[in-house]
Amino acid sequence: MLPGIGVFGTGNVVKVIVPFLRAKGFKVEAIWGRTLSTAEEAAKELNIPFYTNKIDDVLLRKDVDLIFIICSPNLHAQIAVKALGIGKHVLCDKPAGLCQSESLKMVHASQYYPSLISILNHSLRFLPAFMQMRRAIKDGYVGAVTILDARVQTGSLLSDAYDWRCDDAMGGGILTLVGSHVIDLAAHLTGQRAVRVHAVLRTFSPATDRVQGIRRISASDFAAFQMELDGGALVTANLCSSSHLPGSFSQEVIVSGEKGQLTVRGGDLHGRRRIPENDAGKCNHHVKEEVLYLDVEDLHQEGQAPTGAPLLPRPYLKGLFKMVGALREAFQSVEDRKGWVKEPVALAATFEDGQYVQAVIDALRRSSRNREWVKVNIVTEEPDPNPLLSAAVRRSAISM
Amino acid sequence: MLPGIGVFGTGNVVKVIVPFLRAKGFKVEAIWGRTLSTAEEAAKELNIPFYTNKIDDVLLRKDVDLIFIICSPNLHAQIAVKALGIGKHVLCDKPAGLCQSESLKMVHASQYYPSLISILNHSLRFLPAFMQMRRAIKDGYVGAVTILDARVQTGSLLSDAYDWRCDDAMGGGILTLVGSHVIDLAAHLTGQRAVRVHAVLRTFSPATDRVQGIRRISASDFAAFQMELDGGALVTANLCSSSHLPGSFSQEVIVSGEKGQLTVRGGDLHGRRRIPENDAGKCNHHVKEEVLYLDVEDLHQEGQAPTGAPLLPRPYLKGLFKMVGALREAFQSVEDRKGWVKEPVALAATFEDGQYVQAVIDALRRSSRNREWVKVNIVTEEPDPNPLLSAAVRRSAISM
Repeated sequence: MLPGIGVFGTGNVVKVIVPFLRAKGFKVEAIWGRTLSTAEEAAKELNIPFYTNKIDDVLLRKDVDLIFIICSPNLHAQIAVKALGIGKHVLCDKPAGLCQSESLKMVHASQYYPSLISILNHSLRFLPAFMQMRRAIKDGYVGAVTILDARVQTGSLLSDAYDWRCDDAMGGGILTLVGSHVIDLAAHLTGQRAVRVHAVLRTFSPATDRVQGIRRISASDFAAFQMELDGGALVTANLCSSSHLPGSFSQEVIVSGEKGQLTVRGGDLHGRRRIPENDAGKCNHHVKEEVLYLDVEDLHQEGQAPTGAPLLPRPYLKGLFKMVGALREAFQSVEDRKGWVKEPVALAATFEDGQYVQAVIDALRRSSRNREWVKVNIVTEEPDPNPLLSAAVRRSAISM
Repeated sequence: MLPGIGVFGTGNVVKVIVPFLRAKGFKVEAIWGRTLSTAEEAAKELNIPFYTNKIDDVLLRKDVDLIFIICSPNLHAQIAVKALGIGKHVLCDKPAGLCQSESLKMVHASQYYPSLISILNHSLRFLPAFMQMRRAIKDGYVGAVTILDARVQTGSLLSDAYDWRCDDAMGGGILTLVGSHVIDLAAHLTGQRAVRVHAVLRTFSPATDRVQGIRRISASDFAAFQMELDGGALVTANLCSSSHLPGSFSQEVIVSGEKGQLTVRGGDLHGRRRIPENDAGKCNHHVKEEVLYLDVEDLHQEGQAPTGAPLLPRPYLKGLFKMVGALREAFQSVEDRKGWVKEPVALAATFEDGQYVQAVIDALRRSSRNREWVKVNIVTEEPDPNPLLSAAVRRSAISM
């Protein structure tokens, strides 16, 4: 049986995902908003029976067994940890908390309740083009991977009013919102993780038509970064959001290896490699270009997407839909609504993956601030909140 | 009257440019090759009356007034300086010498003989798409430039046998051969110069099908770099040559500003910017995409290009042809074959520009070696060949 869903957040993605969850047979039982009025408004628009601005009022509901956390990043860790503690499955939007120590709390909670689903919304993993790309890399299409290059251009990532998206410290900015996907994808596709990183982050537009005056935008709208992976590959990324080019979106990921090249452009996968010489004596080589996957599936035809302008770029929307489909499969075959099978969601990013991404983001921020290469440091213990006191306690314990 | 030409070098570019020079009315009088046999071979193939492997034998010829230096970079400075000293006009391939002190010698020679033409082969300046892009930037199409992003993918930059192109110290590698164009173009398009730079250089293929055994390739086949320009713009570049994808070539340069974006893809120029809202009260913005220049001109039809496979990527070939056209104009209207008018070649890169590019290349190499941001340092005096001796001389002068 499919679990009832409680949704945290009232933004654009919520408005896309709720109708789709219903179309897939899920019941959306409750919604939480930052204020009671935004919650009420969203509940009415989306026809959700219960709304609140109190976190516990959603988490403690008996008819809610799966939590979708799609609100501002400063609340992600808090809600996710609490939800798992109460025994609810969790799908959490990226980023996994504001910093690595928040992510670590999420990891510990997910490890403590392994019978519950705890996945992160790195939806590009479920985009068919990337699934095919990953398989092709495993099958040796490009040989050993040398370079993964990602280039994303989007319109503005800001809302119409000033909110967390404008604020670097609150998890706004292109590095958290888009870069996190690239960092996750690079690890997912290559099976290698970043060891050392370098970044240039910039806020080229500290004000927009709608955010002006004393409130300045601190969130970055440009990020160029490089990552050395533990298997020898190099990742280069160039991410740019332009408030003056609303609605525009393009995304290209190129994986090069010693034998060939794979490119995901939008939702399509292209491949290029050299055809071995038939005649060993001949000098001229030929390069074969081929389309390995074409994204011809129409989201509208399937009744998956709402009509009107897309609220999320197509690859992210489509990946999200596929991930929800996988979630459905995970629950569908099991009678008990607490039960699920792992296989359909095995592809999804775990909270551990989220901590890794957050560790890289922390390192990239430091790199840009200090203009230096920074080692990625995965912490395994939460930082001591009061190291002086702890040291004193240890000293007194020794002297006793 | 058009000057007679002496050519240094016997490579692919020479084989393209000589027939084109003839088609434009120039006489190619002499060719120099590294060995007498390569010189003889090229002279026969290209039907050039005189060949030699001695530099002076070309420079001292009375019928030669314009020198084309298209040989290995370690000879560029030496030949250029000597040619100017003998009173010959010089077109020199990039890079301008192997390091900045060599470039500086070229600058001093060109300053000493201002009545002679001394230009560098940064041919992309003459590509119509970039000429239009430069004009559009000046006219404020994008507003103040924030980012210039260049992405180039080519097949192998190596010859079939081991030569200078395999050797980093001899001027080989993607940074000198392709990056130099990007560095020059960024300054030319924006009117801003690099202050501080960062690079990641790599040699992913230290051996190829044809270069194996004890001779390893030290020249880089991958370069990602970032440059902070003095006017506040940021340049990001991603350059990659793949020996396993022969013949492939793509080049894209995107200039973003606070108002819009300009893109040169191949030889075409595209623009995107927001259309001002007609109704100030309305919320939806519209983005206008337009083609500003389409490269429909056929090089073959004009009898400019040789038949068969292209030996240089089209944008470089076309830029080179346009530059030769400009050279012709510069000489054509003047009776005396030593005389020329500046205007048609005013667009070309000077030796000073070449020194700047070399200073940036030196900084980028150091950045990659030390994993740090490096300030670009333009030297104005040639380094003292024996600083200890000079110090001793100064000391004794003081004590006397």
